Amino acid sequence: MKVLITGAAGMIGAKLTERLLNDGQIAGVPITHMLLADVVSPAQPTSSLTSSVEVKTLAIDLTDAVAATQLLAQEPDLIYHLAAIVSGEAEADFDKGYRINLDGTRSLLDTIRDKHITNDYTPRLIFASSIAVYGAPFPEVIDDNFQQTPLTSYGTQKAICELLLADCNRRGFLQGISLRLPTICIRPGQPNKAASGFFSNILREPINGISAVLPVQDTVRHWFASPRTAIDFLIHAATLAPEQVGLRCAMNLPGLSATVAEQLESLARVVGTDALKLITRKPDDAINAIVANWPETFNAKRAIALGFTAERSFDDIIKVYLEDDKPNVGS
Amino acid sequence: MKVLITGAAGMIGAKLTERLLNDGQIAGVPITHMLLADVVSPAQPTSSLTSSVEVKTLAIDLTDAVAATQLLAQEPDLIYHLAAIVSGEAEADFDKGYRINLDGTRSLLDTIRDKHITNDYTPRLIFASSIAVYGAPFPEVIDDNFQQTPLTSYGTQKAICELLLADCNRRGFLQGISLRLPTICIRPGQPNKAASGFFSNILREPINGISAVLPVQDTVRHWFASPRTAIDFLIHAATLAPEQVGLRCAMNLPGLSATVAEQLESLARVVGTDALKLITRKPDDAINAIVANWPETFNAKRAIALGFTAERSFDDIIKVYLEDDKPNVGS
Repeated sequence: MKVLITGAAGMIGAKLTERLLNDGQIAGVPITHMLLADVVSPAQPTSSLTSSVEVKTLAIDLTDAVAATQLLAQEPDLIYHLAAIVSGEAEADFDKGYRINLDGTRSLLDTIRDKHITNDYTPRLIFASSIAVYGAPFPEVIDDNFQQTPLTSYGTQKAICELLLADCNRRGFLQGISLRLPTICIRPGQPNKAASGFFSNILREPINGISAVLPVQDTVRHWFASPRTAIDFLIHAATLAPEQVGLRCAMNLPGLSATVAEQLESLARVVGTDALKLITRKPDDAINAIVANWPETFNAKRAIALGFTAERSFDDIIKVYLEDDKPNVGS
Repeated sequence: MKVLITGAAGMIGAKLTERLLNDGQIAGVPITHMLLADVVSPAQPTSSLTSSVEVKTLAIDLTDAVAATQLLAQEPDLIYHLAAIVSGEAEADFDKGYRINLDGTRSLLDTIRDKHITNDYTPRLIFASSIAVYGAPFPEVIDDNFQQTPLTSYGTQKAICELLLADCNRRGFLQGISLRLPTICIRPGQPNKAASGFFSNILREPINGISAVLPVQDTVRHWFASPRTAIDFLIHAATLAPEQVGLRCAMNLPGLSATVAEQLESLARVVGTDALKLITRKPDDAINAIVANWPETFNAKRAIALGFTAERSFDDIIKVYLEDDKPNVGS
């Protein structure tokens, strides 16, 4: 099986690459080729992992007219389309957001369709969507039938790409799935431009002895999954039969609904109460205004029935960070 | 007030034009200019109606790179964006559907945004969307919160345009409203390429002594409003304050839920049982398959609270046709 990952240099892209190379297969089908693409060339994975897989990296700008043709030249069987600019940037730069997040995806879909028509090429495409397709006001629990009324340009772009993908899926140009990922927590590494960054910062930084700013009230509730779970989602999606996915190919995923207070309680429990001393409360009206429009709790009934699973306690989410991502200072 | 109507040569566009010229105002504000645009030049309205309004017509292809600039050159205060290719054609010609229904709308929105940034131009834009943004399976009654999962390319394009419009509305580039029109019945004139055409054909043709084909079962239920009501919707939308519309600017509208059997009972009641003899039952699998995915009944609570109203009996829908549209043969 040939696998293409767009956005492969991102946090999720890199973890997915590592996991696929470790597994060497998906649902029993050996991975033979991987093309890792991003706007900056993704790191070449360490050779120990790649012995049986031909891995190529490609620096490519999705808004380039020939990008999609290059990405699809080898006709990958499975495409993970993760490339996107994040919510904060898409809000700050209207044109760039639509160019990359919408036009980039459309160009990929159009090229797949061209190849489908000429060549019967019909790949599986797994699109990293987001709960940002939803916007307040919300019911207490959001079910699988709730309307998409995004309140950011990022969420609008994700919702539009879901619709485009679903139409291509319905017409049989590809086998599409859009996964509305929960907010990923704890994000390793440096803060990015996502407005949701603080949910990770207030845990990751204190764990590493660094101070962090909490810009919202302790009562703020949100919907989370760990990076490891996000990768599990992406892998599991690739194992579903098209008839399990059907025409409603965008789906909410299981996650953990937690308040900031619950995050901090877990932090104290797992790492110790000293970690809390590194957090400074500094309310930020702009961030509060954005967060007030975010979903808090889902009942992801359909995805759970399809076998997707997520963490059930925030302690587990913190432990995933300690096991998978905490920098091993001094070792 | 300057008014632009795209799709002005269509059935709804022509009726809206006539109504606006008759009224001469919207919510007490006099209409001074009207620009009627379509891919074929709309008919110049009769002079008696246009005495106080400067009316211009324009033949323009929305997919032309300069079309939006030409349409917006005079900075209309109110834009009715009705132009679209219909469901049957958008399904048959994938590229044409996306080019006109999606790219055409996006180009209009982008040009408005440019003018907003340079010139603080902030028009009101009323977009003719459709219940085709919904796709089966449905709950018994579709409420205002139900998800958009279209099962046609036409419905996909309408849903995407709603999302684009909502993002522009949220950012303040314009004041947008998307009206999810029920199926308009009885459509006057000739059948068009809409898959829903038979709902009108089975009434209009017998009323005029012409035979008609019924391709579905009598039990098929659907959601209707008359052309007159559709025009009322478009006018009423223009009178709403932006704060009444808010950020969820796409809305379901009231209508009448009726089965084909109920349509035919009304036909017999209003026009006489002889009309039924002109209807031939000829089941069409393709049309049945499409119709099976269409919504049947809505609870358009929000639009009703905002003052939108529709017919409450199918007899009334037939009477509207007799009063407004039946050709006066021999007079």
